[in-house]
Amino acid sequence: MASPPPQSSPSIYEQLRPLFYPKSVAVVGVSQDAWKPGTTMLRALQRFGFQGALYPISNRGGELMGLQVFPSIAALPEAVDLAFLFVPAPALPSVVRECREKGVRTVVAFTGGFAETGTEAGRALEAELLAEFDGTFRMVGPNCLGLYCPSGGVTQHPGEGYPRKSGEVSFIAQSGGISEDFARATPNFGFYSSKVISYGNASDVNECDLLEYMGADPETKIITMYIEGPRNGRKFARLLKAVGADKPIIIWKGGLTPQGALAAGSHTGSLAGSLEVWVALLRQVGAVPVGSLEEVLDTAAAFHFLGGHRDLRVGYVCAGGGNSVAAADSAYRTGLVLPRLSSETSGKIAALLPPVGATSTNPVDVLAPMPAPSALKGVLEAMAESGEVDLIIVDRVVLSSELRKLMNYSDQSPEPDEPWLSDIPIDVKKRFGLPVMVVLRENLDPNGNVMVEAERLRLRRYYQENEVAVYPTPDRAFRALGHVVAHNRRGSQSGEAS
Amino acid sequence: MASPPPQSSPSIYEQLRPLFYPKSVAVVGVSQDAWKPGTTMLRALQRFGFQGALYPISNRGGELMGLQVFPSIAALPEAVDLAFLFVPAPALPSVVRECREKGVRTVVAFTGGFAETGTEAGRALEAELLAEFDGTFRMVGPNCLGLYCPSGGVTQHPGEGYPRKSGEVSFIAQSGGISEDFARATPNFGFYSSKVISYGNASDVNECDLLEYMGADPETKIITMYIEGPRNGRKFARLLKAVGADKPIIIWKGGLTPQGALAAGSHTGSLAGSLEVWVALLRQVGAVPVGSLEEVLDTAAAFHFLGGHRDLRVGYVCAGGGNSVAAADSAYRTGLVLPRLSSETSGKIAALLPPVGATSTNPVDVLAPMPAPSALKGVLEAMAESGEVDLIIVDRVVLSSELRKLMNYSDQSPEPDEPWLSDIPIDVKKRFGLPVMVVLRENLDPNGNVMVEAERLRLRRYYQENEVAVYPTPDRAFRALGHVVAHNRRGSQSGEAS
Repeated sequence: MASPPPQSSPSIYEQLRPLFYPKSVAVVGVSQDAWKPGTTMLRALQRFGFQGALYPISNRGGELMGLQVFPSIAALPEAVDLAFLFVPAPALPSVVRECREKGVRTVVAFTGGFAETGTEAGRALEAELLAEFDGTFRMVGPNCLGLYCPSGGVTQHPGEGYPRKSGEVSFIAQSGGISEDFARATPNFGFYSSKVISYGNASDVNECDLLEYMGADPETKIITMYIEGPRNGRKFARLLKAVGADKPIIIWKGGLTPQGALAAGSHTGSLAGSLEVWVALLRQVGAVPVGSLEEVLDTAAAFHFLGGHRDLRVGYVCAGGGNSVAAADSAYRTGLVLPRLSSETSGKIAALLPPVGATSTNPVDVLAPMPAPSALKGVLEAMAESGEVDLIIVDRVVLSSELRKLMNYSDQSPEPDEPWLSDIPIDVKKRFGLPVMVVLRENLDPNGNVMVEAERLRLRRYYQENEVAVYPTPDRAFRALGHVVAHNRRGSQSGEAS
Repeated sequence: MASPPPQSSPSIYEQLRPLFYPKSVAVVGVSQDAWKPGTTMLRALQRFGFQGALYPISNRGGELMGLQVFPSIAALPEAVDLAFLFVPAPALPSVVRECREKGVRTVVAFTGGFAETGTEAGRALEAELLAEFDGTFRMVGPNCLGLYCPSGGVTQHPGEGYPRKSGEVSFIAQSGGISEDFARATPNFGFYSSKVISYGNASDVNECDLLEYMGADPETKIITMYIEGPRNGRKFARLLKAVGADKPIIIWKGGLTPQGALAAGSHTGSLAGSLEVWVALLRQVGAVPVGSLEEVLDTAAAFHFLGGHRDLRVGYVCAGGGNSVAAADSAYRTGLVLPRLSSETSGKIAALLPPVGATSTNPVDVLAPMPAPSALKGVLEAMAESGEVDLIIVDRVVLSSELRKLMNYSDQSPEPDEPWLSDIPIDVKKRFGLPVMVVLRENLDPNGNVMVEAERLRLRRYYQENEVAVYPTPDRAFRALGHVVAHNRRGSQSGEAS
């Protein structure tokens, strides 16, 4: 995928770039108390490995973590690219004013206590704060947890243990907590974050600005969002369509039920819409509507591993007839097809499987979770060679010799579990250029043996590192694949170019 | 819950009891090849600890695993309670005839190759087999993986590593593979199986017989099912209503889409119905319709931990506003209510939380995942004391000192993480007699640290052992709770006694 050109005004991109790639960062509101938020932010930046100039600010001065503490933004030796503000709500407008006067390029205001409180005082304070913004600098927040951009060396609050590795997926989140869960979870889904940003009350920088930024950002290939209420629905829809023409945009909208909307009101002061209106709007502009963080992550992983895949035909290889039935149900519900194999292909597969009990049509049932490695290899090769399917999902087959032993399957195989057992799906994927997905189930050990869990995690990572998407249930694999295929086929029925 | 009386004909209960509590078992079709199914079944029974008489049968005779091998069923010194038959399909009718003539009380036929093949020959063979059943003995299968009943000392094929501990949940499954996944997974969901049985083609013993048995079985308190197609819909509906009056029945129906129905046809030869018809039928008779194995397990766990809970009001304690919004959405979708707390209760909670950013109404947002233990304790107590909620869900709060350290949260708390941190939800549950559920999220560590995973598994087990249900996402917690509440309130709107 070539990196797309900036979508519209390049100025947003230039305005916000110092947030993600600051050469200098000030943290306002540090303290000798190690657990105060300003201090933990400073420590997180240090431990995360921020390479630029770092300025702690506290009116008590002194030294902290080996750094000189400055008494104020005004007293800094330079106008920083980015200031993290941990100051009480009533003091925030004056600190922001100081940032403007100094020439600070961007600020992140973590503190809550503004419009989201629903009080007249809160709204007035947010209006006072907003009055400081004259177009010369920008603010994220208030009421947020900041941002994480490993290639820029910055992390959010708290974000000390976040991965240093940068990826191609960005997350724009109105909620700090959800942005944290996303950042922590991503590597477990096989991809890494480019940028994760929580924008809270969207008082200055809002979802439209961030969407435009991610559209222009060459590092971001896939955009994910959690939003409660966009301020300008029309502009947001226009941007979704423009940015979405080049990059998939996966959106989870919170507060779509009356009860959720009530909660959203006290969270970020957002007005919510109805579920039906939102889903219809999102589909119309080519975005991908999802309903939970799990679905955001699953779907982003599918776009990461499968890119522009748009073919409906899936070959499904499983152990057990009931699981085949369930998977056929899942496939149907997500608009995918499990085509019946030709008698030639089916015959080749049948020759590799036990004569009774297995199924050589699609879904292929290899009968038990521990087929001989050579038989499994033959089945996948026959499917891939046939040209009758466009993607293969392998489910419930135990793909690691170590797991077979740990699950007491080892002595049921007539053939030694070759060391290449785990490599069979990867090998078939590479040789035939056919996408392969693996379903690796959870809760495999009834006694909670942590060695089983460790081997499951190792195997998952191994497949992901070899560009094979891994899901814990067939439902989740089909749901994610269905999103990718539907997205990449959008417009094709009405004859539009996508 | 008092153990219910037998539901209807006690004869089914008497007929099938030897399946689950055999005093003697024959395994027909063992071999010196260690990996052949008959042999692995024999080994699994031995290792599982079957205490009765065990008779391997092979026409080659000799000795196997320290046991004398008999040449035939006829040659056995007694008429066994249960015979496991691993013989090729064409030979099965004659072996079954031998069982009848010997007086064997029950048989399980594992082999496939009958009606499910869709061939004339397969159907004819199944008819020939069925002709042997004259009402004096019963057969499970053919085309199944047998049964698991820890209190009877029997396990399925394969089932060597299954838990020896017996519980109150039984699973009736048309699919062997799904029955295996259920049996392996249950302890991870906090409950144990009483009986798990896969019944394959339902040629003799079918879902109606097994439902009637589980209704009469005093060990079974909760019934779960995976079915593809019941043979007699009217009788099945009648039994669901009768048995379901005393025990919740959770049903996952496979093959409800055209594609799934096609797969079901080649799996167990079942005719499928439509989704709408099935869900409507199941709700009408008071059963709980679910759509995946995950939902079967989640829902069974909720019935196990929450029994007759029927109250709608949930107190939800979370860290982060976005998660609160999402949970409010989930609660609404499942018919549950997050009531706004009184100003008195809300005031008590507010006094314990940071002055800015937290939310003291319901959902309560404690702001960050590592609240001070004393604050968390106070919040749960204030909710429990208020009488304003009937159940509390604690989500995303990190409830273990060890996890806080591993997640780099340890030095962000102003208070030492007391050893009693994990016990707070358990303590509140016990002192106030209020059900508590915990959401313990997965993928907590970005680097796949297996120590984090081990601690998560330990903590999950700890809560489950203390009768607190644990779910990995708020969606799944609310979905399971919603099923329990809806089931226990059934009929209450129309004034029926339940």
